[in-house]
Amino acid sequence: MRMKTLYISALFAALAVCQTSAGEWRDVEPENLVIMDVSHGRVLIELAPQFAPGHAERFRALVRSKFYDGQSFYRVIDGFVAQGGIGEGDDKKSAGWPALKSEFDRGTGVNLDFSPLGSPDLFAAQVGHIDGFPAGRSPKEKRMWVLHCPGTLAMARDNEPDTGGTEFYIPIGHAPRRLDRNLTAFGRVLDGMQFLQKLNRGDPKVESGVIQDAEKRDPIIHVQMATDLLEADRPRVQVMDTMSKAFKDYKAQRRNPAPEFYKRPSHNLDICAFNAPIRIGKEITD
Amino acid sequence: MRMKTLYISALFAALAVCQTSAGEWRDVEPENLVIMDVSHGRVLIELAPQFAPGHAERFRALVRSKFYDGQSFYRVIDGFVAQGGIGEGDDKKSAGWPALKSEFDRGTGVNLDFSPLGSPDLFAAQVGHIDGFPAGRSPKEKRMWVLHCPGTLAMARDNEPDTGGTEFYIPIGHAPRRLDRNLTAFGRVLDGMQFLQKLNRGDPKVESGVIQDAEKRDPIIHVQMATDLLEADRPRVQVMDTMSKAFKDYKAQRRNPAPEFYKRPSHNLDICAFNAPIRIGKEITD
Repeated sequence: MRMKTLYISALFAALAVCQTSAGEWRDVEPENLVIMDVSHGRVLIELAPQFAPGHAERFRALVRSKFYDGQSFYRVIDGFVAQGGIGEGDDKKSAGWPALKSEFDRGTGVNLDFSPLGSPDLFAAQVGHIDGFPAGRSPKEKRMWVLHCPGTLAMARDNEPDTGGTEFYIPIGHAPRRLDRNLTAFGRVLDGMQFLQKLNRGDPKVESGVIQDAEKRDPIIHVQMATDLLEADRPRVQVMDTMSKAFKDYKAQRRNPAPEFYKRPSHNLDICAFNAPIRIGKEITD
Repeated sequence: MRMKTLYISALFAALAVCQTSAGEWRDVEPENLVIMDVSHGRVLIELAPQFAPGHAERFRALVRSKFYDGQSFYRVIDGFVAQGGIGEGDDKKSAGWPALKSEFDRGTGVNLDFSPLGSPDLFAAQVGHIDGFPAGRSPKEKRMWVLHCPGTLAMARDNEPDTGGTEFYIPIGHAPRRLDRNLTAFGRVLDGMQFLQKLNRGDPKVESGVIQDAEKRDPIIHVQMATDLLEADRPRVQVMDTMSKAFKDYKAQRRNPAPEFYKRPSHNLDICAFNAPIRIGKEITD
């Protein structure tokens, strides 16, 4: 009898996923699927070359060169971000990887399908989903970008824009939307956020959260691109087509939640609390 | 040289905290300070009787009766909530603790000091801080309530409003603001969210996230009220006075972040990404 509280919301998410047809999902392309093994489990990330082609290409190249293997999450601030790579002050190690031109946003001229959330936003003129990624859009400026939601993959940098190139971070708390269009976001975690949440934290008041004791930094064990595995070994992951009727229905369900439980529904949605559903392996029923 | 990215934002938070005077902080009252030891570390929670007196009183009584000691976090959904207590379907165990009358919001007649955030919100007419708690307010309805931000302490319930009384939950992902005024929020985690983030998760698609294998549920080892400890043994915790100049300055800093780094500042703040600072033990410099 107890605790149906969140039962309801979880149930509705499950329903939306069950009632779909195969055509309402897309397979994540193996060349965009990153498999990152950390101490606590496996994290699957989808790269977003449609938003940041230079960063997606660089990340693929870094993964293939085994750049991250054996490195660590050295700067982890609870409620904010987990940052991984070779670590601060170790620029020399990345000498072979010059800084990238930033890709904070992109012209809407590439004409990607945008599924508007239908709620206002505190930071962007419009928010919605593009290929499952939480996206902002400015019709006036004709720009679009990936939002800093929990699980977004982005590139750290120094003060000036074109100074990042190897060190990545992933928001692990309430969305730090103030970073939108100030840093390059180029992917999102599809599965395994729970394993990033288990990473050891630094003290945000000391050296901006860099974990001082290197032994306490959780390792990045091994990172691979799915496309480099034998087809039979690749994880199969699907993202709900965010232009589909299934996704539209899911949005409507969340906007009008079960009245048996929600006596005061809010109707507005918050983009970073509303992710495009995914399904993995055996959950795929086509 | 690398990764000043979030360095800047952390630095500013630290500055705001350093430049304060003793009068700009308040000690958390021992009768509102909950000390919860979980497998990964110690969590400190402040109760908010000014918003939900019945729930604060009940929680204190449960803690003192050792109700939670040896129980577990049995329903943990990554990106959503960690729910603790005796577990679903075990109503009989809580027979001595009748359901509480819900306290979803409270009349503003009690006249608590409200420090407006100064940004719009997707869910509440007004948002800001009251005694350090993230709060919503409706001048029209003359009601106020604690918001469902990460770290908020709230009481789970069945479908009907007055059906909760022992099982608590704490949001651990992007704020589930749709729960505001639908459940009773009555406190917030001041320290130790990182230890709740390490809790084992359930599968949200199975039994709404209840961890099926009881052995995988992280225990609630021991919960105490600070007031029941010898004075010398009580943790000393302070929350920045959210009516103080220091807090106003901190807000202004976040609204106008360092232009060396932020080339496109957003100026709007999101209430759940802007917590009242705290300091603990040796950090207290009065």
